[in-house]
Amino acid sequence: MKVSHIEHLGIAVKSLDEAIPYWENVLGLKCYAIEEVAEQKVKTAFFKLGQTKIELLEPTSEDSTIAKFIETRGIGVHHVALACENIEEQLADAEAHGVRLIDKTPRNGAEGLSIAFLHPKSTQGILTELCEDKNK
Amino acid sequence: MKVSHIEHLGIAVKSLDEAIPYWENVLGLKCYAIEEVAEQKVKTAFFKLGQTKIELLEPTSEDSTIAKFIETRGIGVHHVALACENIEEQLADAEAHGVRLIDKTPRNGAEGLSIAFLHPKSTQGILTELCEDKNK
Repeated sequence: MKVSHIEHLGIAVKSLDEAIPYWENVLGLKCYAIEEVAEQKVKTAFFKLGQTKIELLEPTSEDSTIAKFIETRGIGVHHVALACENIEEQLADAEAHGVRLIDKTPRNGAEGLSIAFLHPKSTQGILTELCEDKNK
Repeated sequence: MKVSHIEHLGIAVKSLDEAIPYWENVLGLKCYAIEEVAEQKVKTAFFKLGQTKIELLEPTSEDSTIAKFIETRGIGVHHVALACENIEEQLADAEAHGVRLIDKTPRNGAEGLSIAFLHPKSTQGILTELCEDKNK
């Protein structure tokens, strides 16, 4: 595979209202977008930190995967997203290396990116997302 | 506080020998250093991924904090390290904002950096390290 940088870190939080003041007032970053992703049952908030975005994820329902994650592991880093080009090729390459794909083909993610998740069982325990900006 | 980018992600692994092939052969990154940090009871392996380094952490003893982390949370992201300048000022500013400091003053970390940890209870569940390269 070929990945260029960490596109974002997905971070599970109980409440954006509680979490945003830490990232803004303590760390000094600026929240530049808040978006509800109904399909994923989350509300998200975005910050920029160098090359990488911080994506806070608040569950909007008890059966959201983020709510379940918080229940078993607590708040904190939920997934690591890697930027790439030709996401279809990267997925094929990952599969050829024995990586279990959660998404066999890319789907639409936040900010108009094409995204696909790899299963943490085959990525050293880290839920990993691939992201391609096809509008570049 | 003022932080510029994610300096590294610290990732807990059971075995470098098992983990390195994933980062090298599957993700296509290059391991450029392996270092034992006796004081922390870990063996580390480093990769570059854009602006950010990946620091794999293998416990060398059962009473290493990394061994305990793996026991309770499993392998995966252990800490997030943020690059800054004037680390002493950032620590004072963090404390003034009510952040609990694990290290009240900076100490020497890997690669000659000055580092200090912030307690995850006051950083939204993310064990956070500040890093300054004073040799720059």
